[in-house]
Amino acid sequence: MESELLHWLRSRLPADRRAPLGLTDDAALLMLPTGGQFVATTDLLTEGVDFLLAEADPQRIGRKALAVNLSDLAAMAARPVAALVSLALPRSGGLALAKSLYEGMLPLAAEFDIAIAGGDTNAWDGGLVLSVTAMGTVGAKGPLRRSSARPGDWLLVTGEFGGSLLGRHFDFTPRVAEALLLHERYDVRAGLDCSDGLARDAAHLAEESGCGLALRLADVPVSASAAERAATSGRSPLDHALGDGEDFELILAVAPDDARRLLADQPLETPLTCMGEFVAQPGLWQWQGDKLLPLAPTGWEHRFA
Amino acid sequence: MESELLHWLRSRLPADRRAPLGLTDDAALLMLPTGGQFVATTDLLTEGVDFLLAEADPQRIGRKALAVNLSDLAAMAARPVAALVSLALPRSGGLALAKSLYEGMLPLAAEFDIAIAGGDTNAWDGGLVLSVTAMGTVGAKGPLRRSSARPGDWLLVTGEFGGSLLGRHFDFTPRVAEALLLHERYDVRAGLDCSDGLARDAAHLAEESGCGLALRLADVPVSASAAERAATSGRSPLDHALGDGEDFELILAVAPDDARRLLADQPLETPLTCMGEFVAQPGLWQWQGDKLLPLAPTGWEHRFA
Repeated sequence: MESELLHWLRSRLPADRRAPLGLTDDAALLMLPTGGQFVATTDLLTEGVDFLLAEADPQRIGRKALAVNLSDLAAMAARPVAALVSLALPRSGGLALAKSLYEGMLPLAAEFDIAIAGGDTNAWDGGLVLSVTAMGTVGAKGPLRRSSARPGDWLLVTGEFGGSLLGRHFDFTPRVAEALLLHERYDVRAGLDCSDGLARDAAHLAEESGCGLALRLADVPVSASAAERAATSGRSPLDHALGDGEDFELILAVAPDDARRLLADQPLETPLTCMGEFVAQPGLWQWQGDKLLPLAPTGWEHRFA
Repeated sequence: MESELLHWLRSRLPADRRAPLGLTDDAALLMLPTGGQFVATTDLLTEGVDFLLAEADPQRIGRKALAVNLSDLAAMAARPVAALVSLALPRSGGLALAKSLYEGMLPLAAEFDIAIAGGDTNAWDGGLVLSVTAMGTVGAKGPLRRSSARPGDWLLVTGEFGGSLLGRHFDFTPRVAEALLLHERYDVRAGLDCSDGLARDAAHLAEESGCGLALRLADVPVSASAAERAATSGRSPLDHALGDGEDFELILAVAPDDARRLLADQPLETPLTCMGEFVAQPGLWQWQGDKLLPLAPTGWEHRFA
């Protein structure tokens, strides 16, 4: 949620409705009056911002709309159960478009063993809007949160960053299995998934936890796509890795002992990399030798005029 | 969901994912692997179709976006727990608009004791789109469904119908308390809420239950607003009551003995009216003397070109 709006909304909600409902987490944690808890998350994709309908295959758009929600469940270490799909469709060709969108979602739903349990379909005179809500359950350890990193925790990430626009922002695999495994076997203190940009999202994790974060830029896992983008953009591969966003990799705060163990085990098919640590001093920093210099949290922000 | 798309989607889903997830109900019924069940529903409102931003107060639009979802939970006799709110906002003035929308939602959320637990906010170059997902829990009797009316059941409705465009489509009270009370105390066999139109929605209830429905048109509770609309529309008040939609009243199939008891008890603040009965012969019918004549299921349908 856009940060100014989020702060305003927090101020308007009664205190007992603000926590533990996690307006700031990737998904809302809901306590059922009957006992038990589950998480629910929603993401909305709009034509012209998240995709160009003239350029992208509708099946890939549909897949992405579901995948970003599964990634949000992964960020909470929740096991996906079901999704609801709402579509605002152009009147002309809307039904055929809807089917193509679903054709992209259904294989992903099958892969992650979730039900597409319903939704809403609307024709209108505007562009394509997809709103997907995904729900999942939480294991005995509870959900992974954004607010519980501590100074001294190591910053670990899955995979590589940058250049997702070349295709990975459509075709990424939500890190659901990875998050469940890590959360179950290791002392992962806090986490989120990278959507807005590595630097910005990592800074969010620190901010929500009330601490700061010091990055070692030489250790950032930069993707080949970031280098490919840099060849024409005039920016460095590292810049792309830090700021492009939509990598949908996990950004994690791990207790030091478990971080060492994790890096030695490398229990995932995708590599885990340590690229910094959480510090007491608020803000985003970079190590330069043994000095901390400020670092700008580049990344994506929804802009209002 | 649009019916052609729904049939197509049903055909594409593995059989074990089609039921009991209720693609056709007002809300999806979700079984948690940990035991227990809850329902989730989503509705999407678009500018120009569901409201005119130039004419309507944004607070009323926000309230409506949440209220229609609460009405869907009522249709399942579910107790609301939380809602997620996604907005596609115009770039210019988007943040102020978002706050107005929330200003309309928050009193309703407080009234129904639910959390606004998160959401997504996006700026784009298109019109305003609101997508709200509401979740609720189900009591010991399970949810109220659409598919379990039987021939012989009486058709009962809450409140009055027609002319909702004069204001009630914004300011209606979701029949949550009413549905919970009726479902707990009486043998309500099936139900839904009236959004697309009394005739169309009642026909849906019969169709989903594999039976037909015979209306007594003289007994339709026609609202004063329907008469007001009829004064200028050239159509009858009854036409408006049957076809206008967005009444958000409950349409219920009740076992005959309990229907008699219910009509005698009148346990709600709003009146309950019997206006027909379910019959074995599929289709929508009207009584004319002791003969059944076909009746057109007028109402709203999303139109694709």
